[in-house]
Amino acid sequence: MQIYNYPLFNTWPKILSRPANNYSSINSTVRMILDNVKKKGDAAVRDYTRRFDGADLEEFRVSKDEMEKAAGLIEPELKEAIQKAAKNILAFHEIQKPPMRMIETAPGVKCWQKSVPIDKVGLYIPGGSAPLFSTVLMLGIPAQIAGCKEIVLCTPPNEKGEIHPAILFAAGLVEVSRIYKIGGVQAIGAMAYGTETVPRVFKIFGPGNSWVTAAKQIVSVNDCAIDMPAGPSELAVMADESADPEFIAADLLSQAEHGPDSQVVLVTTEEPLISKVMQAIDRQLSELPRAAIATKALENSRAILVNDEEQMIELINFYAPEHLIIATRNTTNHADRITNAGSVFLGNFTPESAGDYASGTNHTLPTQGWARSFSGLNLESFCKKITFQEISRDGIQQLGPIIEAMAEGELLYAHKNAATLRINSSES
Amino acid sequence: MQIYNYPLFNTWPKILSRPANNYSSINSTVRMILDNVKKKGDAAVRDYTRRFDGADLEEFRVSKDEMEKAAGLIEPELKEAIQKAAKNILAFHEIQKPPMRMIETAPGVKCWQKSVPIDKVGLYIPGGSAPLFSTVLMLGIPAQIAGCKEIVLCTPPNEKGEIHPAILFAAGLVEVSRIYKIGGVQAIGAMAYGTETVPRVFKIFGPGNSWVTAAKQIVSVNDCAIDMPAGPSELAVMADESADPEFIAADLLSQAEHGPDSQVVLVTTEEPLISKVMQAIDRQLSELPRAAIATKALENSRAILVNDEEQMIELINFYAPEHLIIATRNTTNHADRITNAGSVFLGNFTPESAGDYASGTNHTLPTQGWARSFSGLNLESFCKKITFQEISRDGIQQLGPIIEAMAEGELLYAHKNAATLRINSSES
Repeated sequence: MQIYNYPLFNTWPKILSRPANNYSSINSTVRMILDNVKKKGDAAVRDYTRRFDGADLEEFRVSKDEMEKAAGLIEPELKEAIQKAAKNILAFHEIQKPPMRMIETAPGVKCWQKSVPIDKVGLYIPGGSAPLFSTVLMLGIPAQIAGCKEIVLCTPPNEKGEIHPAILFAAGLVEVSRIYKIGGVQAIGAMAYGTETVPRVFKIFGPGNSWVTAAKQIVSVNDCAIDMPAGPSELAVMADESADPEFIAADLLSQAEHGPDSQVVLVTTEEPLISKVMQAIDRQLSELPRAAIATKALENSRAILVNDEEQMIELINFYAPEHLIIATRNTTNHADRITNAGSVFLGNFTPESAGDYASGTNHTLPTQGWARSFSGLNLESFCKKITFQEISRDGIQQLGPIIEAMAEGELLYAHKNAATLRINSSES
Repeated sequence: MQIYNYPLFNTWPKILSRPANNYSSINSTVRMILDNVKKKGDAAVRDYTRRFDGADLEEFRVSKDEMEKAAGLIEPELKEAIQKAAKNILAFHEIQKPPMRMIETAPGVKCWQKSVPIDKVGLYIPGGSAPLFSTVLMLGIPAQIAGCKEIVLCTPPNEKGEIHPAILFAAGLVEVSRIYKIGGVQAIGAMAYGTETVPRVFKIFGPGNSWVTAAKQIVSVNDCAIDMPAGPSELAVMADESADPEFIAADLLSQAEHGPDSQVVLVTTEEPLISKVMQAIDRQLSELPRAAIATKALENSRAILVNDEEQMIELINFYAPEHLIIATRNTTNHADRITNAGSVFLGNFTPESAGDYASGTNHTLPTQGWARSFSGLNLESFCKKITFQEISRDGIQQLGPIIEAMAEGELLYAHKNAATLRINSSES
């Protein structure tokens, strides 16, 4: 971790720059894979699954039998934890149901807005060393509450053509409609275009490596909506003398262990805290299985000493972190002043990993500064809003002339005529 | 307009395909312009404004003096119409303010979600033959209600370096912070990257030609969020024997006059209606100044006769039109069953042009079938949601073990440790 004492405002962009991620070098390969999936469907998917995952699959879809067996293969303690976490996530996303909004904007002119689920959604769960069953909950639960009719899940199989039972258990819990053993770019292509066996979906959700991210960005131009631009994990901690250095070290390490390109930032008004946190990191790091990854991530990371609370908040809003821990005396007031962040954790007993798993908030969040303009996943990510209007015979008498004047001002006479005809007719 | 009688379901994708729009041929030029704006800032913008708009500008920003003069240059009738429309748009977007949502998901675990305005937003208003002041209202009013701190507006100048007074009047009404005489790709670049005079924004809104659309899609990959993928205007009308053929013709023409690549679709259970609408179109078309454009758009357009109400609704949801008029006896019931559409107009006295200008709903809507996954612009398009959580000392005792079990299941031991340390400490 690099330490910066009282850096000037004009140095912030440099100090707080993210590790570079450039997908353009892989774009042409990604495009080729996508094109093949579009043209050849299942055959291409089968071929890539053999090549990239080492699995030779006739049938991609997970069977009922596999689903039933999965539940028996998980430790009861983990099963119970998943169920309890699911309950909290469900509760938090349930309260996000948007009300139907209606108003008479002018006499006889009724307008309303209704939230409607996206019919078909695709969830992507990455493979790799660890089974990301928590992400199944984070994507599947809001999709289920929203009422999406078809929920498709793709995740890469291991070489034996299997999916980790915890993934299947979580998918069963959230009532995913179809699970496919497909990973990588070919999974994104299959869901965006549809194949003989995989239905085309209208929006794809979920994290992934740079290949998956590049594929999502490409299909989003013409074919399928995506949740948000994805990037490496981030955490910022703002702390004063009330913070616990051991806790902060543990939180910084929990994000650092995600990947070598993760970034963690400590911002504090309290000089002695920095060295205490550094020492705690050294101590804790030595006991971590993923110490090598975390060490690499710490190289991209920063500890920043600032003058006062004002600057602490200003710097956080400038950085726009994915996760923010507020470990200060005045957490509520500070939280109120945060305008750019994905998810915020208040106080000494709220570790960031609570939000990764179990508090109820979603862990799919904007990285790379996208928190300036993007929300984390929430119930409405699985819906779209439709507006409605109904004008009465009397209503058009009053509103009509406004439409006529504006349409004429924009030189759109057919627009005007659609109002004129109705005004004339409603008079009779 | 091509007529299809009782087409089979498997022919729908073909019949309802949109006119092709492929931006890939212009992408390299767009990228070059963007790169130049990124590198050279104002100098590049000045150069392109000279080249593309024929205006030689020292100062891009519209002055207070220009703003004040604008109001005097507009017909009082138009001014009043704009003010009344603004009032309705304001009323409808005001009711969209999302509530703060809070819940205790488990004992001692408080979670909440808050909507926060995007700090800096950019509005793009296209140039061309007609001044699109209505779009200024549709973008500016929700930005203003949301509370965006900086609202930047770019629009191309004419050869004399002027902006149409109606644009300036509308921009003044919605309290845009800064207006720049910049158009096209260079405007998108200036707002996405920032220049010496134009501040960088975090999200860009608004329609544009294929160059502007391509530029928005390119900057959205790494630099700046955008509202939605934009495409040519569309209207579908579903009608039964209660519909008025003259009104339908006028509505179809009002979308057809937008551009030669617009598309309008009539779906009906009532065979005689089709020929009556066709005759009315012929009659009305001859009196329109933009008849040539509308005629071209009608070539892409369809009249479809279906068996029954069921199929009418199924076909509309399959097509997912930007605008939908429901001219049937049972409008409310039919409206309830629409799941894919941007904005819906109920009954014989609700022309689509009401939503373009004055009813209060937004006219920036998803085209090209994006209504399956995208909302039209609304208040929340100018906000993002931040989630918060606060766990008490007691709360972590209960939630902690769930976090530990799940983190261990995902092999993320630093995540686990952040919970363990707090559990141990809170016991003492």
